Amino acid sequence: MFKINENYQKLPGSYLFSTIAKKVSAFTQANPDKDIIRLGIGDVTQPLAPAVIEAMHKAVDEMGKAETFHGYAPDLGYEFLRNAIAEHDYKARGCDISADEIFVSDGAKSDSANIQEIFGPDNRIAVCDPVYPVYVDSNVMSGRTGVYDAKTETWSDVIYMPCTMDNGFVPEFPKETPDMIYLCLPNNPTGTTITKAQLQEWVDYANQSGAVIIYDGAYEAYISEDDVAHSIYECQGAETCAIELKSFSKNAGFTGVRLGYTVVPKELKCKDVSLHGMWARRHGTKFNGAPYIVQRAGEAVYSPEGREQLKKQVAYYMKNASIIKAGLKDAGYTVFGGVNAPYIWLKTPGNMTSWEFFDDLLERANVVGTPGSGFGPSGEGYFRLTAFGSYENTLAAIERVKNL
Amino acid sequence: MFKINENYQKLPGSYLFSTIAKKVSAFTQANPDKDIIRLGIGDVTQPLAPAVIEAMHKAVDEMGKAETFHGYAPDLGYEFLRNAIAEHDYKARGCDISADEIFVSDGAKSDSANIQEIFGPDNRIAVCDPVYPVYVDSNVMSGRTGVYDAKTETWSDVIYMPCTMDNGFVPEFPKETPDMIYLCLPNNPTGTTITKAQLQEWVDYANQSGAVIIYDGAYEAYISEDDVAHSIYECQGAETCAIELKSFSKNAGFTGVRLGYTVVPKELKCKDVSLHGMWARRHGTKFNGAPYIVQRAGEAVYSPEGREQLKKQVAYYMKNASIIKAGLKDAGYTVFGGVNAPYIWLKTPGNMTSWEFFDDLLERANVVGTPGSGFGPSGEGYFRLTAFGSYENTLAAIERVKNL
Repeated sequence: MFKINENYQKLPGSYLFSTIAKKVSAFTQANPDKDIIRLGIGDVTQPLAPAVIEAMHKAVDEMGKAETFHGYAPDLGYEFLRNAIAEHDYKARGCDISADEIFVSDGAKSDSANIQEIFGPDNRIAVCDPVYPVYVDSNVMSGRTGVYDAKTETWSDVIYMPCTMDNGFVPEFPKETPDMIYLCLPNNPTGTTITKAQLQEWVDYANQSGAVIIYDGAYEAYISEDDVAHSIYECQGAETCAIELKSFSKNAGFTGVRLGYTVVPKELKCKDVSLHGMWARRHGTKFNGAPYIVQRAGEAVYSPEGREQLKKQVAYYMKNASIIKAGLKDAGYTVFGGVNAPYIWLKTPGNMTSWEFFDDLLERANVVGTPGSGFGPSGEGYFRLTAFGSYENTLAAIERVKNL
Repeated sequence: MFKINENYQKLPGSYLFSTIAKKVSAFTQANPDKDIIRLGIGDVTQPLAPAVIEAMHKAVDEMGKAETFHGYAPDLGYEFLRNAIAEHDYKARGCDISADEIFVSDGAKSDSANIQEIFGPDNRIAVCDPVYPVYVDSNVMSGRTGVYDAKTETWSDVIYMPCTMDNGFVPEFPKETPDMIYLCLPNNPTGTTITKAQLQEWVDYANQSGAVIIYDGAYEAYISEDDVAHSIYECQGAETCAIELKSFSKNAGFTGVRLGYTVVPKELKCKDVSLHGMWARRHGTKFNGAPYIVQRAGEAVYSPEGREQLKKQVAYYMKNASIIKAGLKDAGYTVFGGVNAPYIWLKTPGNMTSWEFFDDLLERANVVGTPGSGFGPSGEGYFRLTAFGSYENTLAAIERVKNL
């Protein structure tokens, strides 16, 4: 009889956002007259930029003619896109990353879940707490996390690095030595980040201790402060210790278009084995490239028109972020984030748990957010609101919260 | 110090098609005047059908307006596509597969490489020999294949089921009992297949022995004979033992569009654990859906216009297959396939190895094919030509072979 991967059985309960969807659906059924505003899941609402739409139409037309039809894409992605990425995301920032160190993918979620595959089973992972759940869950599925303690909601073999009000949301070097360190900066869900100088300390720490940093920079486009790095490769020595994951979902509204990329520098090695070669082998064996049309859409993100249009889109969402932050402060809440990221992280009032606050907000203000505890044990007592709604909905939601 | 996944180090040499590309490139550099015709890699050449192009333009326009913009797709894929698949690929053929047993993905290559993840490490896999290399390679990466013997080019823990002239390319039940059986039918690379009655025997065998069948039906649209099943679920009892992988790459020319799907029936269980639930969890955790635009393109494949146009596209390629097959027969070759699949499988003349014939064909006829040995040890002494070239190129290539 065939046997299943028993690690899947260890995964607790259902995915955070499924639980939220069920609660909202039950509330809607019981209260069909209520107008719900969703500032929960991190999905964007603004349409694709005109430059992107134009590029996609052109690419669709190419696919309709034999002379310009495109079949299988090159393994790492089309050069036109990898060159644009290398130029704008790296060379322009003084980072020495070349086009052939960039692997185009169908999104950072896939990459952040798949990257652990090229590492052995007996690596110890460290994660910020709270953080995007995919890092831990993908390692659970691979059997790298030990035993789950339902009471503390932690895994025995995962090193948690609490990021709370107490340490200003800056992860501290853990007591135990990790092999793989996941950093999501600016952070989802807290919306906070660390300075370039602080990131440099992490790079030095990883190089000294022989750890690899998996750096998720999905929210990079929202950085507004000068002392924050847009890429980990702005730090000295990151080429020998860091893999960087990037997404088009938030900087260009590609959540439904699906495009991302991963940088694996050629200098990043385990003894004499190149991780670049390993990731290339995985890419070539288990993936067949992002669609031609989507890669052309990605190229348009870097065109002068595309950059101009997307700067405005980011500004639109960040205006929402200011409205949320200012409104909540006025209403007496303790609030974080929203400066370098489209997420607002608030301390739940009184002694309310994250889920209690979720229920309260849904029932009394008809506003949907995300309970902080869904992102890790140190997220308990916090709550996430996102700036990805429309301006009108964001205003309305905050008015409701103020009037509670 | 972090540790790598040592299984990657076991993978021999480079991917088959990289080696071919290098050889062709060297030949082209040495002979810039020669006009090379490629009937090697299984990439399509005909443009997308007009119905598909129209659907994609419409979807691109939707993405450009806030009212019709689409962000994250539902985990399993959009209902409009899953309903069309359930209706046309299953209900119309009398198969009891519902839309919520269908998981839309970015292609059958990803699915066929990822599906092994939901199974434990100590399953014994069986593969047809020769076959599409991804099944074995993805299992090597997961450590399920034992030790590689470079002389026989086999893995100690893989059960090989030779499919050669001697058994009419029909896999026989192996002596050892496998846990996971990969069947690619019609087969890549041989272009041959088995009857529905023979497939029923495999379903019965799997149900009796407690094995799971991973059934790759990527070439289903090319089936022309009445006694061949278009889905494994046409066989009695397949719901309790089989997962089916399907691709839009060959039936609709989507190699550069990227769309596929996997069927995991709810009745398929390991003791009381539902594989459907496990694959849903994997899908939700490690993947974020195929692009909205691409899923709309997939829907158009099932529209009356799309079906009509794609029937013609399949006929176009199958005309090429007949030309290749008839031409090679005329020239004295022993030839197989090309009736239910777009692949022609020929016995190399004399005692030539697959690679010797590759070199000879490239040098004397300037035609590129694929050495059979690249698909498994029993492929040695065979050679694959594909029908995916243009009509004109196919005719020209066969003329050259005839004149050798």
